[in-house]
Amino acid sequence: MSDAVVLLSGGLDSATTLAVAKRDGHALHALTFRYGQRHTIEVDAARQVASDLGVAGHTILDVDLRAFGASALTADIAVPQDRPPAEMAGGIPVTYVPARNTIFLSFALAYAEVLGARDIYIGVNALDYSGYPDCRPEFIAAFERMANLATRAGVEGTAPVKIRAPLIGMSKADIIRLGTELGVNYAHTTSCYDPAPDGESCGRCDACVLRRKGFAEAGTADPGR
Amino acid sequence: MSDAVVLLSGGLDSATTLAVAKRDGHALHALTFRYGQRHTIEVDAARQVASDLGVAGHTILDVDLRAFGASALTADIAVPQDRPPAEMAGGIPVTYVPARNTIFLSFALAYAEVLGARDIYIGVNALDYSGYPDCRPEFIAAFERMANLATRAGVEGTAPVKIRAPLIGMSKADIIRLGTELGVNYAHTTSCYDPAPDGESCGRCDACVLRRKGFAEAGTADPGR
Repeated sequence: MSDAVVLLSGGLDSATTLAVAKRDGHALHALTFRYGQRHTIEVDAARQVASDLGVAGHTILDVDLRAFGASALTADIAVPQDRPPAEMAGGIPVTYVPARNTIFLSFALAYAEVLGARDIYIGVNALDYSGYPDCRPEFIAAFERMANLATRAGVEGTAPVKIRAPLIGMSKADIIRLGTELGVNYAHTTSCYDPAPDGESCGRCDACVLRRKGFAEAGTADPGR
Repeated sequence: MSDAVVLLSGGLDSATTLAVAKRDGHALHALTFRYGQRHTIEVDAARQVASDLGVAGHTILDVDLRAFGASALTADIAVPQDRPPAEMAGGIPVTYVPARNTIFLSFALAYAEVLGARDIYIGVNALDYSGYPDCRPEFIAAFERMANLATRAGVEGTAPVKIRAPLIGMSKADIIRLGTELGVNYAHTTSCYDPAPDGESCGRCDACVLRRKGFAEAGTADPGR
């Protein structure tokens, strides 16, 4: 059983990705960040999802992206509400956190190199996405290429690292169908950008809108809050 | 005056790189990490060097690379001593910190994107280096390519980010000559991997050996400790 590092936010996409890595036969090493996001409810969700899927290890790292701010998730900027999905595709929204996926994948690369893992999973999605540059397939490919020059693999000629983005071309509805088939308990996931202190989703941010649309199209009820 | 982000460790190379960025006419934004290294004396050195060169800003971030360990700088592994430089080129030493430069450059990318800076400086060196994969020109080029797909620049077609590694092809002696010319006070830098608690260099680790060789070849006395 080969090791895989899986970026796990506690959201719907990363929970499904963790289940895909399990289906692929890997021993799972989940990696979650407290990066200064508005709410750390998602960190509790990540713990629950990791436990549900029987990970071999779960590392939670503190990384202060509030030092740079400039995003509605890491600074005092309002989270947009009630945007129709078509509008979301129109540009980079204020919820974009500069270089976040690059930073997260870089830590995953360090973790993978230490474990001797060759597979890194990330739940990015380029279809029902919110216009983030670091969710595109060309970014993932460029990161993989760089990763193999950055580490031992590039010097010692050992097996290269693969960045796996199994959801990248899927619709939210297909992701939900796949995760359900693989036993993901979506009641334990959280997607909202701006939940109430008790964890209740706002229902109005881009993430809530896309999640609702996804469950509707999948024809299932959302068991989450 | 355009902004530049400069990775600054407090060592000889990054201090010189900061001086080069200043010579290039940039407003300087230094970025330093407390990443779980054996000693944080270098963080104090970075503060001093940043102040010497009149930076516009200096951000010091905490990033816990001890969570992964596996390096003599971030785990309980002995730092090698008294290795001749020729031996250092023979492989990746235990002082290599997995994916460290990838992680540091990723944060620099976030900082640059927030500032609207197009230049990121890093003091990597491929000649008198210690066999680190992430100090090679091909790594820097691949990171730059990835960086431009990861961020706004790649989507909005604004001016691309450049990763500047001005020392990459220079000998340690040439770096010292250049820095001296540009007014770097090397008394304020520290290179040792394993200094005594009072900041005194060990004189025996790879970094001390390379620094001594560099000053000897440059024909100057090392004003550092």
